Amino acid sequence: MRTLVTDMSKKIQVGILGATGMVGQQYIHLLENHPWFEVAYVAASPASAGKKYKDALRSGWIVAGNMPASVAELVVEDVASVEKAAKKCALVFSAFEMPDKDEIRRTENEYAAAGMPVFSNASAHRHTENVPMLIPEINAHHLDIVPSQRKANGWEKGFIVVKPNCSLQSYLAPIFALHQAGFPISDVLVTTLQAVSGAGYPGVSSLDVIDNVIPLIPGEEEKTEVEPVKIMGEIKNGKFVDFKGINISAQCMRVPVSDGHLACVSIKFKGKKPSIEEVTKVWKKFKGEPQTLDLPFAPEQPIMYRDEPNRPQPRRDRDNDKGMAVTVGRLRECSVFDYKFVALSHNTVRGAAGGGILNAELALKKGYIHAK
Amino acid sequence: MRTLVTDMSKKIQVGILGATGMVGQQYIHLLENHPWFEVAYVAASPASAGKKYKDALRSGWIVAGNMPASVAELVVEDVASVEKAAKKCALVFSAFEMPDKDEIRRTENEYAAAGMPVFSNASAHRHTENVPMLIPEINAHHLDIVPSQRKANGWEKGFIVVKPNCSLQSYLAPIFALHQAGFPISDVLVTTLQAVSGAGYPGVSSLDVIDNVIPLIPGEEEKTEVEPVKIMGEIKNGKFVDFKGINISAQCMRVPVSDGHLACVSIKFKGKKPSIEEVTKVWKKFKGEPQTLDLPFAPEQPIMYRDEPNRPQPRRDRDNDKGMAVTVGRLRECSVFDYKFVALSHNTVRGAAGGGILNAELALKKGYIHAK
Amino acid sequence: MRTLVTDMSKKIQVGILGATGMVGQQYIHLLENHPWFEVAYVAASPASAGKKYKDALRSGWIVAGNMPASVAELVVEDVASVEKAAKKCALVFSAFEMPDKDEIRRTENEYAAAGMPVFSNASAHRHTENVPMLIPEINAHHLDIVPSQRKANGWEKGFIVVKPNCSLQSYLAPIFALHQAGFPISDVLVTTLQAVSGAGYPGVSSLDVIDNVIPLIPGEEEKTEVEPVKIMGEIKNGKFVDFKGINISAQCMRVPVSDGHLACVSIKFKGKKPSIEEVTKVWKKFKGEPQTLDLPFAPEQPIMYRDEPNRPQPRRDRDNDKGMAVTVGRLRECSVFDYKFVALSHNTVRGAAGGGILNAELALKKGYIHAK
Amino acid sequence: MRTLVTDMSKKIQVGILGATGMVGQQYIHLLENHPWFEVAYVAASPASAGKKYKDALRSGWIVAGNMPASVAELVVEDVASVEKAAKKCALVFSAFEMPDKDEIRRTENEYAAAGMPVFSNASAHRHTENVPMLIPEINAHHLDIVPSQRKANGWEKGFIVVKPNCSLQSYLAPIFALHQAGFPISDVLVTTLQAVSGAGYPGVSSLDVIDNVIPLIPGEEEKTEVEPVKIMGEIKNGKFVDFKGINISAQCMRVPVSDGHLACVSIKFKGKKPSIEEVTKVWKKFKGEPQTLDLPFAPEQPIMYRDEPNRPQPRRDRDNDKGMAVTVGRLRECSVFDYKFVALSHNTVRGAAGGGILNAELALKKGYIHAK
Repeated sequence: MRTLVTDMSKKIQVGILGATGMVGQQYIHLLENHPWFEVAYVAASPASAGKKYKDALRSGWIVAGNMPASVAELVVEDVASVEKAAKKCALVFSAFEMPDKDEIRRTENEYAAAGMPVFSNASAHRHTENVPMLIPEINAHHLDIVPSQRKANGWEKGFIVVKPNCSLQSYLAPIFALHQAGFPISDVLVTTLQAVSGAGYPGVSSLDVIDNVIPLIPGEEEKTEVEPVKIMGEIKNGKFVDFKGINISAQCMRVPVSDGHLACVSIKFKGKKPSIEEVTKVWKKFKGEPQTLDLPFAPEQPIMYRDEPNRPQPRRDRDNDKGMAVTVGRLRECSVFDYKFVALSHNTVRGAAGGGILNAELALKKGYIHAK
Repeated sequence: MRTLVTDMSKKIQVGILGATGMVGQQYIHLLENHPWFEVAYVAASPASAGKKYKDALRSGWIVAGNMPASVAELVVEDVASVEKAAKKCALVFSAFEMPDKDEIRRTENEYAAAGMPVFSNASAHRHTENVPMLIPEINAHHLDIVPSQRKANGWEKGFIVVKPNCSLQSYLAPIFALHQAGFPISDVLVTTLQAVSGAGYPGVSSLDVIDNVIPLIPGEEEKTEVEPVKIMGEIKNGKFVDFKGINISAQCMRVPVSDGHLACVSIKFKGKKPSIEEVTKVWKKFKGEPQTLDLPFAPEQPIMYRDEPNRPQPRRDRDNDKGMAVTVGRLRECSVFDYKFVALSHNTVRGAAGGGILNAELALKKGYIHAK
Repeated sequence: MRTLVTDMSKKIQVGILGATGMVGQQYIHLLENHPWFEVAYVAASPASAGKKYKDALRSGWIVAGNMPASVAELVVEDVASVEKAAKKCALVFSAFEMPDKDEIRRTENEYAAAGMPVFSNASAHRHTENVPMLIPEINAHHLDIVPSQRKANGWEKGFIVVKPNCSLQSYLAPIFALHQAGFPISDVLVTTLQAVSGAGYPGVSSLDVIDNVIPLIPGEEEKTEVEPVKIMGEIKNGKFVDFKGINISAQCMRVPVSDGHLACVSIKFKGKKPSIEEVTKVWKKFKGEPQTLDLPFAPEQPIMYRDEPNRPQPRRDRDNDKGMAVTVGRLRECSVFDYKFVALSHNTVRGAAGGGILNAELALKKGYIHAK
Repeated sequence: MRTLVTDMSKKIQVGILGATGMVGQQYIHLLENHPWFEVAYVAASPASAGKKYKDALRSGWIVAGNMPASVAELVVEDVASVEKAAKKCALVFSAFEMPDKDEIRRTENEYAAAGMPVFSNASAHRHTENVPMLIPEINAHHLDIVPSQRKANGWEKGFIVVKPNCSLQSYLAPIFALHQAGFPISDVLVTTLQAVSGAGYPGVSSLDVIDNVIPLIPGEEEKTEVEPVKIMGEIKNGKFVDFKGINISAQCMRVPVSDGHLACVSIKFKGKKPSIEEVTKVWKKFKGEPQTLDLPFAPEQPIMYRDEPNRPQPRRDRDNDKGMAVTVGRLRECSVFDYKFVALSHNTVRGAAGGGILNAELALKKGYIHAK
């Protein structure tokens, strides 16, 4: 029988599903030298199965740094070989990029059914009833749904956790921090300027973004508007109840930037408007469970506020605190709503693989993960 | 004595002040082969005076096309030689880019005092009491202020007309068109994604925009919010009265695009919300005096609405109707206000030199310009 | 029986094969308002067949300008319907972008067999024995091979003409011009900085070129080195004989530029080295048959030499003479070879669709094309 | 009296001249947490003198990371206050970016005369007779000139060391490594694709490089061709003697890349051509004094060879080994010379501040630096 992981002196073996894609590579990159996790298993489509990882990358290693030597030599497994994964891994990260969401849901379910916690970057399960969609600084307590999820599915050890869309990671923490501090916000108008890496690889054609902006990211505005109400919601009677107190309207633009989503946000408070000093103080002091639990991927300060008038900027701020901090700036009066500000987060770190890793760290620390 | 220009068979001699800068070059480029105007005079700072135009450009010809051969050989005059200009030109275009606005105001006044109509791209005189700030499709009737302006300054023939900031050219016509059609708008939240050419040359450092966005354009948000109330205002008792019925809040971003300002706009109607069909119909049918008067630089359709979901785009739409049309798209419901849409205009054509030329065409056709 | 086209008062009906791709769109864009040709037929893969052209574009209209209204309404035909094309078109332009060269060769052959001249942008037939690979200013006389080609294939009216790779269009005319003027060149080292549009659409991933250079364009260096020897060759006994007198070595880089291939060229003369003045004079005076025959797409001056030290530049020079001129600059001494220079051509105009159109104009004017 | 630095347990106080510019900031960034050096002194023009460093940056902190807190609070000194610097610093890094080379030479001389070793990034002293121009892996022994330099100038402790231009850092080590291994090269044709940061800040206008390439970097080709002969030269009788055995011809292009200079190199061997395996083996095994002495900024492997066909790439390889390694790839046959390859180095790390720091580490380890 498998037991809860409590001995941190031995690294936990993890698997990456969809390991050859851009997000898969990013997971492998970020997990190199991780203090708790070790990539021991890589799975991809049947076309890649059987090859060494280093030979399975059609376009080579496209993320930062160089391919970790230990992973380069791993043999890629077929994602269908769930039992094999279950033998090798204590948990898996799902980095699937295929368009068929039913297939993703089914596959992630199979891994969970086989006893594995699944930390997914895919959108397929974001609105599945009892699957928590975590930004650990905001709703770490949503993990409490896991027993209900297991029960509903008849899973003993496995479960599924997802992270929300990258587009909202920049501005939701600042909004939640104010909410939590007693300054609830009723209306949000946000325009996002999103990096091309958000579309995966090959993703956006270079002909579409050189000297250009694309004013459409299919499905993105809906996700940006809808996901926050689940994240900010509560669990009642073993079920998620959406947070109803906020209206969000988003315009999502694709700009010629490699990494880093910028959001231009206008907010209206439900009640009394705090002063600029009060707002920035709330942001600077904001901490969540990842900070309390001292998780390895937790940024020291989840919301960094910069006083310089021309920050945050994607290229210069996306890597703040290893890409896990949200950087905010330009808080100023708004002549229509109450305030305007600009927020930035690294979409393939905090907004993708880094966020998934933080979710797994949280679940581990909270006792949801069993050794193989 | 000088007489009104009525004979269009002979080209009108015009001068360019600040002719060696980027906007000056753009004027020269756009006026090549103009049916009414001919660049006969170029003026710049004393450092350039006395040189042939082609030898006075420190960084060469930086705008589209090649330097018109006739202008290349003109000798650059000192901008201080106002009388010389008055002898040669029936009007001047002011393309000053120097930072000192007092100096610009003083210099433009001198040209007007010497009897010349001055069509300015500079912001210096935009809030001078009796100087019209024109978007001819919106407020051509603001030219009626000219007699008051002349009287107040003791000018006989000369006068000054300015054009507004490039940042608002994309979205103000769509808003005005609805206003005029009986659908007044009370609130506008706009985020602009602005091209680097808006900052002139050398302007924005390449190190600031490669793979990056700069979330600050000093002074731009204020202009974007304030100028529309003058443009949409009325003349009462020989004075402009601001339009009070609209609140605008802007966030202005600099993106790595050479030309073309994109605006992401959210609007709330004062009264009943028209249907999407009504709105697009208003836009498609919108015409102003430039169209009625058939001015050479008037776009056929000032507001082009594109049905494709991923348009307008700066690189692919900025040149629509020779860069003088505003291209609009993505009109859709907004969950906070009434509608959202995206609008684009070419900032150095419609938003700068092209707009100035259209102003001069309008003034000429309306009988404000005298032959030399 | 079909007769030679001699009456230019009626437009010639042409077809575009692969009409929905980027090069196909570029053909349609450039042929709008062509004085001789009119797009009357568009063909693509079975997936698009039966749809209106405007509904068949998966990613919309991605080239310059707007979709010509007349073409928008054409029904896309299956490329396999060769007989249908033969009834409607006097000639076809092949803009195939599929990877299978055998399939392209077979399909182009079928159109030729059905009696149609085929002007191809594809590389499939570039080294087919009796298919001319034309840059009309250099080897217009290679059209003389057409009777041999027809005979060898048993074709009565149809034939195939190809254009060379876009990478060599910038520097081969300058080299040929010197060769023709009595200054043959023995060695050429060239580094090309190529635009992303050279890879078609979607082509190069934006993640590969934002803030980056890709030092590999598969197959490109070989084409750049090998194709010139056919182009500069002669016809002997009805067969092409390669030009043996020149060694070319190329390095082909992909840079973050939308359109316009730049070549940095170092040359060594076989014999006496002409002076810089002699070289630039040769270039400025260079003309070919397209100029003599006054073909509509012929640039007035095939090689434009710019004296400014910082030209040619892709964005500022690619559109010279409607994108059909090669712009050259920076001719200077080389400490290893004789001279160095920089040359530029628009890869999707001169280097693709524009070049194909010029080939067809040449063939028409030379009497190779029959009316339907 | 000052004594040689031998106790590494205490950090050595260093000063940055031109500390507010881009290269100055880069020095400060790279020296944060340096094991031997500590920035204790920052100097700039009189306009900045007296301000806190954090308040003296006109355009803010523009390099990677955030401004080190300790430096932020330092008061900027006037560069003319040489004596003050001499009291505080054991050595200075010169990051001057002013155009007047005479002024730079004079100022650097004053610091040396005051007893300070000066490690300069400026080009002013590169061809001064007894000033070593170091790439420590190539010509560490050029430091032996220091006694002659001191004697010639009457300096007791101070001296000046420069680093070469950033454009040649990518390809000179690979060439030298072959030379040293017994495969001397007679001819080099190189085209460089250089990042905009090479021009400093604000440097290149964004309007010049968006969707563009600039085929001119004033003075760069000459530096690229001339500096290697000094670097590869020897000291005879206390004087540098140029290396005469190599001809280099360069074309230097500016491309829209933030950091990382790429070189496309064609080489011809003087004698027998080694095999591809021999060449890559030489490169992989190449080490110099920085590696032997285990200097903190020395890359483990000065020349990294990548086997992937599409590497090196600026964005993905510039940071290899903290930006201090040269990354090489695509070694292949050349049809004109012997081989072609592509090489990359980080121009503001290895090619600027990082290179200067490595020079200082070398001088320190070799006993040229005295404690304050």
